[in-house]
Amino acid sequence: MRIGICDTTFARFDMGAAAIDELKNNATDLKIIRYTVPGMKDLPVAAKKLIEEEDCEIVMALGMPGPMEKDKMCAHEASTGIIRAQLMTNKHILEVFVHEDEEDNPQELKKLAENRSRKHAQNLLQLMFKPKELTRNAGKGLREGKEDAGEL
Amino acid sequence: MRIGICDTTFARFDMGAAAIDELKNNATDLKIIRYTVPGMKDLPVAAKKLIEEEDCEIVMALGMPGPMEKDKMCAHEASTGIIRAQLMTNKHILEVFVHEDEEDNPQELKKLAENRSRKHAQNLLQLMFKPKELTRNAGKGLREGKEDAGEL
Amino acid sequence: MRIGICDTTFARFDMGAAAIDELKNNATDLKIIRYTVPGMKDLPVAAKKLIEEEDCEIVMALGMPGPMEKDKMCAHEASTGIIRAQLMTNKHILEVFVHEDEEDNPQELKKLAENRSRKHAQNLLQLMFKPKELTRNAGKGLREGKEDAGEL
Amino acid sequence: MRIGICDTTFARFDMGAAAIDELKNNATDLKIIRYTVPGMKDLPVAAKKLIEEEDCEIVMALGMPGPMEKDKMCAHEASTGIIRAQLMTNKHILEVFVHEDEEDNPQELKKLAENRSRKHAQNLLQLMFKPKELTRNAGKGLREGKEDAGEL
Amino acid sequence: MRIGICDTTFARFDMGAAAIDELKNNATDLKIIRYTVPGMKDLPVAAKKLIEEEDCEIVMALGMPGPMEKDKMCAHEASTGIIRAQLMTNKHILEVFVHEDEEDNPQELKKLAENRSRKHAQNLLQLMFKPKELTRNAGKGLREGKEDAGEL
Repeated sequence: MRIGICDTTFARFDMGAAAIDELKNNATDLKIIRYTVPGMKDLPVAAKKLIEEEDCEIVMALGMPGPMEKDKMCAHEASTGIIRAQLMTNKHILEVFVHEDEEDNPQELKKLAENRSRKHAQNLLQLMFKPKELTRNAGKGLREGKEDAGEL
Repeated sequence: MRIGICDTTFARFDMGAAAIDELKNNATDLKIIRYTVPGMKDLPVAAKKLIEEEDCEIVMALGMPGPMEKDKMCAHEASTGIIRAQLMTNKHILEVFVHEDEEDNPQELKKLAENRSRKHAQNLLQLMFKPKELTRNAGKGLREGKEDAGEL
Repeated sequence: MRIGICDTTFARFDMGAAAIDELKNNATDLKIIRYTVPGMKDLPVAAKKLIEEEDCEIVMALGMPGPMEKDKMCAHEASTGIIRAQLMTNKHILEVFVHEDEEDNPQELKKLAENRSRKHAQNLLQLMFKPKELTRNAGKGLREGKEDAGEL
Repeated sequence: MRIGICDTTFARFDMGAAAIDELKNNATDLKIIRYTVPGMKDLPVAAKKLIEEEDCEIVMALGMPGPMEKDKMCAHEASTGIIRAQLMTNKHILEVFVHEDEEDNPQELKKLAENRSRKHAQNLLQLMFKPKELTRNAGKGLREGKEDAGEL
Repeated sequence: MRIGICDTTFARFDMGAAAIDELKNNATDLKIIRYTVPGMKDLPVAAKKLIEEEDCEIVMALGMPGPMEKDKMCAHEASTGIIRAQLMTNKHILEVFVHEDEEDNPQELKKLAENRSRKHAQNLLQLMFKPKELTRNAGKGLREGKEDAGEL
C-alpha cells in the first residue's frame, strides 16, 4: 500500500519523520512517498498530487500553524482545502496540525508535535487495516498527542 | 434501504450507537453501514464514501466539537465539507453536532448528545419515508435534543 | 413553470406557506414543489435536488437562524452552500433568511418573516417574468420586509 | 466583445449605469448585457449565467454591502461565490463593492460608488485590451474610487 | 519550463519584478509569463488561466493586503480561491502575500516585500528542480522574508 506524507519547512519540528517512523514500526509492506512543501497552504494540492499522481491510498498532511491571528487564518484555509481535496478524491487525508500556542514551553511543544504525529500515524493504520478498532472506540473521547478526554 | 452512520473517536458519547438504536426501533428493512473516523474533519469524506462506495441513500454525520475557539473552527470546516459532500452527491447528510459547551453538567451533556442523536434519526426516517410529516411541521420551531422553541 | 420552495421545521414561522400564497396570488400556471427539511444546513442540497430531480426553474430557500453565535455560523455555512448550489446548476436559489434577533418583539419578528417571504416571492416573479422591472430599480436601495433604504 | 454587468436593487446608487457609461465613453464595439438581481448573494450565479448563457467575455459584479455585521458576512459569501464562478469559467468577474460604512456623508458615499464603478470599468478595458498597461502599473499602490496609496 | 507570475496594481511594491529577477538569476531555460490584475481577488482566476491557457507548470501569486479588517477578508477570500485553483489544476500556485501591517516603517515593509518575493521564487525553484532540498529542511522553522523561527 502506498502512503503519502506531506509536510512543511515552516514547521518547527520534523513531524513527517516522526509519522514515518511510527508507520514503519507498526506495519510492513508500506511504500511511503514523502513530499515537503514550504508552508501549510501548499499542503492541499500536495496531498492531492500524492493521491492522483503517486497513487497513494491515504495521506497525512502535517503542519505547525504559528501563534498569530494571521497564522490561524492560514490554518483554516489549509484545512478547508484539505477537506475539499478529500471530497475530490474520495480518499482520507489526515490533517495533523500542532498550533504553536498549544504549549508555552518549547520542549512540551516538541513533545506534543511528536506524539500527535505518531498517534495520527496509528489512526491511519487503523483506518486502513483495522476499521473495527475505531468503531470500538467511537465516543471514547480520544485525543491525539494529549491526554484523552474520555467518555462522559 | 442502506443508511450510513459516520461518527468519531473524538466524541465523548457514543452518538452513533444511539442513532442506530433509534433507527432500528422505528423501522425495519434498514441496512446500516457504520464508519468511525478519528475526528470531525474526517467526517465529510467518510460520509461521501458511504454514499458513493457503500451505496447509502442517506447518511448521519455525528460529532462533538470541543469547547475551544480552535474546536469551533474545526466544526465550521467540517460543516462546510458536509454541505459540499451533499451537493456533490445530491444526497442528504444529516449533521448531528453537540458542542461540549452546550451544557456545563456532564450528565446533561450526555443526555443532550443521546437525545439529539435519536431526534435526528427520527428526522432521517421522516425525510426518507414521511416527507409530508416534515412539511406539516414547517415553521413550528422544532429543536433537536432540547425543548422546541415553538411557533411565534 | 416549476418553482421549488424549501423550508425548515426549525423556523418559528411558516415562511414557505407565505411565499407560496404570494406566488399564487400573483401568477398563474405555476407548479410549486415544496420540500421541508429539518434545519438550515439541509437547505442547500434540498434546493439542488428540487432543481435537478424535480426540474424546478428557480427555488426559494427559507429559514430562520437563531440568535446565538453558533446559529450565525450555521447561517453562514448554509448561505455558502446555497451559492455553491446555484453555481453548480446555473439556476437562482433565492435565500430568504430572517434572523431571530432582527426584532425583539415576537409579533414584529413574525411580521418581518411574513413580509420578507412575500417580498422575495415577488422578486422571484420579477426575475422570471419581468427582469426589466429589476433593472429599473437598480440602485434604489430596496429592502425586503423592512422599509427601503432608498437612493443616496 | 460581449460584456456583462450585474448589479442589485439593494444598492443605494446605480453603479451599473455608471459602469456602463464609462465603458461606452471609452470603447466602441462593446455589446453590454445587463442583469439586475435583488441582492449581493444573487450576483455569483448571475455573473456565471452572463458568461455561460450570454457569452460574455468578462463581467462586472457591482454591489453595496450594508454597514451591519450581517451585511459584512453577506459580502464575504458573495465574494467567495464570485471567485468560485471565475474559477469554474476561466473568465474574470470584477467585483466592485462599496461598503456603506466607507463614508459617513451620503454625498461622499455616492461619489465613491460612482468613482469606483468607473475606475473598475477602466480596469476591465485594460484587462481586455491593454494588459501591458496593468503590468506597467504593477506595485504602484493604485486604489479604485479613492486616492491611490502609491508606491512604498 | 513555463512559469506564471501574477501580481497586482494594488500592491505598493513591484513584487512580481523581484520574483522574476530572482528566478532569472538562479535558473536558465525558464519561460516567464507575467499577468498583472487590479487586486488580490483577481489573482485566483489569473493564476488558473496561466496554468490552463498559458501552459504554466507552476505560478506565483503576489499581493499586498491592506491593513484594514476589510482587507484581511479580501486576503482570506483570495487565499481560499488560490487553494481551490490548485486543487482544480493539480499545480502549485505559491501565494506570496505581504500584509501592510507587518511592518510600521515603509522602508522595512518594502524590504520585506522584496525579500519574501525572492525567497518564494527560490521555493519555486526547489519545488520544481530540487524537491529533496525541501525535505532536507522539513521541520526547520523556515520563514520567508523574515528571520527563520528555527527548530524547537
